[in-house]
Amino acid sequence: MKLSELIALVGGRTNGPCPDADITGVSSLHDALPGDVTFLANPKYAKQLASTKATAVLVREDCDLPPPAAGGALVRVASPDLAFAQAVPHFTKPAIVRAPGIHPSAVVDPTATIGKDVHVGPLCAIGPGAVIGDRCVLEAHVVVDDEAVLGEDCHLYPMVSVRERCRLGNRVTVHNGTVIGADGFGYNTKVGPDGIKVEKIPQLGNVEIGDDVEIGANAAIDRARFGSTVIGPHTKIDNLVQIGHNVRTGPYCGIVSQVGIAGSTHLGAGVMLWGQVGLAGHLEIGDRVEVLAQSGVSGDLPGPGLYFGSPAVDKREAMRHLHVPRAVENLKAQVAALQQQVKALQSKQENT
Amino acid sequence: MKLSELIALVGGRTNGPCPDADITGVSSLHDALPGDVTFLANPKYAKQLASTKATAVLVREDCDLPPPAAGGALVRVASPDLAFAQAVPHFTKPAIVRAPGIHPSAVVDPTATIGKDVHVGPLCAIGPGAVIGDRCVLEAHVVVDDEAVLGEDCHLYPMVSVRERCRLGNRVTVHNGTVIGADGFGYNTKVGPDGIKVEKIPQLGNVEIGDDVEIGANAAIDRARFGSTVIGPHTKIDNLVQIGHNVRTGPYCGIVSQVGIAGSTHLGAGVMLWGQVGLAGHLEIGDRVEVLAQSGVSGDLPGPGLYFGSPAVDKREAMRHLHVPRAVENLKAQVAALQQQVKALQSKQENT
Amino acid sequence: MKLSELIALVGGRTNGPCPDADITGVSSLHDALPGDVTFLANPKYAKQLASTKATAVLVREDCDLPPPAAGGALVRVASPDLAFAQAVPHFTKPAIVRAPGIHPSAVVDPTATIGKDVHVGPLCAIGPGAVIGDRCVLEAHVVVDDEAVLGEDCHLYPMVSVRERCRLGNRVTVHNGTVIGADGFGYNTKVGPDGIKVEKIPQLGNVEIGDDVEIGANAAIDRARFGSTVIGPHTKIDNLVQIGHNVRTGPYCGIVSQVGIAGSTHLGAGVMLWGQVGLAGHLEIGDRVEVLAQSGVSGDLPGPGLYFGSPAVDKREAMRHLHVPRAVENLKAQVAALQQQVKALQSKQENT
Repeated sequence: MKLSELIALVGGRTNGPCPDADITGVSSLHDALPGDVTFLANPKYAKQLASTKATAVLVREDCDLPPPAAGGALVRVASPDLAFAQAVPHFTKPAIVRAPGIHPSAVVDPTATIGKDVHVGPLCAIGPGAVIGDRCVLEAHVVVDDEAVLGEDCHLYPMVSVRERCRLGNRVTVHNGTVIGADGFGYNTKVGPDGIKVEKIPQLGNVEIGDDVEIGANAAIDRARFGSTVIGPHTKIDNLVQIGHNVRTGPYCGIVSQVGIAGSTHLGAGVMLWGQVGLAGHLEIGDRVEVLAQSGVSGDLPGPGLYFGSPAVDKREAMRHLHVPRAVENLKAQVAALQQQVKALQSKQENT
Repeated sequence: MKLSELIALVGGRTNGPCPDADITGVSSLHDALPGDVTFLANPKYAKQLASTKATAVLVREDCDLPPPAAGGALVRVASPDLAFAQAVPHFTKPAIVRAPGIHPSAVVDPTATIGKDVHVGPLCAIGPGAVIGDRCVLEAHVVVDDEAVLGEDCHLYPMVSVRERCRLGNRVTVHNGTVIGADGFGYNTKVGPDGIKVEKIPQLGNVEIGDDVEIGANAAIDRARFGSTVIGPHTKIDNLVQIGHNVRTGPYCGIVSQVGIAGSTHLGAGVMLWGQVGLAGHLEIGDRVEVLAQSGVSGDLPGPGLYFGSPAVDKREAMRHLHVPRAVENLKAQVAALQQQVKALQSKQENT
Repeated sequence: MKLSELIALVGGRTNGPCPDADITGVSSLHDALPGDVTFLANPKYAKQLASTKATAVLVREDCDLPPPAAGGALVRVASPDLAFAQAVPHFTKPAIVRAPGIHPSAVVDPTATIGKDVHVGPLCAIGPGAVIGDRCVLEAHVVVDDEAVLGEDCHLYPMVSVRERCRLGNRVTVHNGTVIGADGFGYNTKVGPDGIKVEKIPQLGNVEIGDDVEIGANAAIDRARFGSTVIGPHTKIDNLVQIGHNVRTGPYCGIVSQVGIAGSTHLGAGVMLWGQVGLAGHLEIGDRVEVLAQSGVSGDLPGPGLYFGSPAVDKREAMRHLHVPRAVENLKAQVAALQQQVKALQSKQENT
């Protein structure tokens, strides 16, 4: 692709005449080689313009930046991020597409219902009474257990488990190794005359996942003790996330990697939980609450709001907490000065 | 089921005459529809009595609560939680039961020993010399490696890996995707004249799991460097937990989701670790120690005791730490006042 | 093995004559039985010499310790840890070795290229265009997707997923359940007149893993949005680690269990991240940075350096932060005393 074609594609403009360069790839500012188009969205990286070898850099329309030292062109666009996303598919291999059909090595129970144009990959196992909606793609090594139901256009990557009686909506994507519907963690412990007795509380509910949900790799969403654990539509869940039994999330939530949500906690709409956040059980988290990374939430959080810390508090308060060590140093100095001054006052007073 | 039958089932009583209502389902207070029985165990939810549509609510015998506004009945029982657990199976589908037999798609090494009435699901792989005890259920896609041994009545869900020579006791349940016996994380690093050399320390031990243990989904329990990593009987482990090589847990421990225990740490009996707790290696954690969520344990903890924080300390001390920011604000005000007072004293003294 | 043979094997020496004892096993100081050889590397365990039943204990040459109370011999060596590692294989079963060959139950696409002396275990699935280098071992239930490439002598344990177009170097070991190349977590959210719209950003890059890398169980390394997520040679990654899209690690990094690294963060050479550490995205972490357990890194860290805390700061500063609660208690007492003294001064001044 010529640079001029790229500029047309992304609806950009350059200062000065448009050079007749070839664009042959996409890369980051840091890693770009001649021929690459790259982009500058995060101002943190502006200094890399001095060293990038990229042939073209997509920048914000109104930015005031020098052209790349190595001679590349600045291409001004409304959103460098989106413009780059438009360019990328032209320089990368297309996504793998799976043709409809059931691989002969898959084990599909005769009582399962398979929709139209479904792809069932090698070595899948589909249990009795399961229902797979039209145009679903089950990559190799997917297990869909008894009476589980998938809507239309779902995409399950290898090693995904959908446990018995769980239900996925339409256009649900689940990445490798994720487990939907394992038992929740619930036991009754009794200390009796014969010692301790730990009894499992049967986990007889299921998981219900709304439309347009995507779940990353090696996550775990537990089935409900009764009723359903519910993931709201358009919610996006990252890798290695834990969602306990009877949790409910609203629509449009974002749950970043390694978050853990304990049982029966409810998220409103548009809740955003950043990496490694932990939520205790039985909490109500309001609409449009955002909790920053590694926070620990032990009480209800009204929304909208931005929270941070362990235990999580309003972010402005949490930021003040971060200044406590310095404040203590200041106080030490002030108290030492006061002690001197008071001593001086005391000795003067005694001498008068 | 009639409400009167439910009341008889759970051994409860109502105030006033018992209405002749039909009970058709189980639900939470919040989600209940007419016909549902629900329960109130956590007083936090008492306010939901005003809005619940449930036909019956199981409550504590001695509670002093108004009947549901929508007209449902309060049913008084000794333990609402247990009574509800008794009711649930009557309104939910029974758990899936697997019939004995080996699915023809499973790959069972001829030198493996399979007990009586064992279920081996589709696409399982059982290695040379492995032993599967009587009445075990291996769901689809379970891998039991060479010379691994399962006791009787174990239940392994899809995608579970039991690595070579690991041993499970009787009645051990393991949920999807959990890995028992991957190598521990151990290397020797040498910086020599030719640069750095990182040598793997062979991990030649195994994992031994006691009777009546349950392990959640996508957890990892590493094999020992030598000897055994040991999980004590009746210990319950939640999803996404990491247990390092040569760890030992006592009996009746509870290890909640996303906990990490580094190598060679020993837990006593009845230790409870809440979500996302991290334990350093080579620690001794005493009997009946409880560590609250997200704590980080860097030293031995005597038991019994309740600990919190990072680094974890006695919970009462940790709670005082949480008041530090407010105490600092108070101190700032007090110091400012003192500075004023001292200044006033100084100027008066100078004027006398 | 006789004790004298063990001493010769590890190049050690005993004080006094060498007893003619039999060595029959290896164990820890705590668990050793008569016949076992054990070792003392961590001085924390020195007190266990009083109770160990081991027949021989490997200790540092220059140590000043009493012999085991139960009569075992102290064997002095340059490095007890390495000497013990030399002894262990003589008393444990050898590692399982997989013979070359493709199991008939494996599904290997006819367009895949399988090198010489490769082992493909039961129920593996190898996709179109995949390349498996010479002498690789794929245990049971490994999935290598379309056009993925493995170098020579790789070892993939059961349930490992290598997604489309990812590339592993030579001598890469990956433990059970780990996912290489699932989609990164990237969405564009637009709030328009018709409501919220969450659009997936295609994740069109791959993962490139250098030579001599080892990755633990149930970890997740996301494919790049474009270009590659890169794991440097000789880097070792523990269980349940999350590595986001477009992350790059240098060579010789160590990443301990449950660490999470957000997208586009770069690690230099020899970076060490201890358990449960979290790194924000778009950070530059310098060579030989070490971050202690549970820390949260929100800004660039120059190397070399030792960091701790959430947010992570220089370890010495973090250690001072830990003393803040005590400092505040001291300040409270000092301020109370000052208040008394000032009050006394004031009343005296008023009376003069």
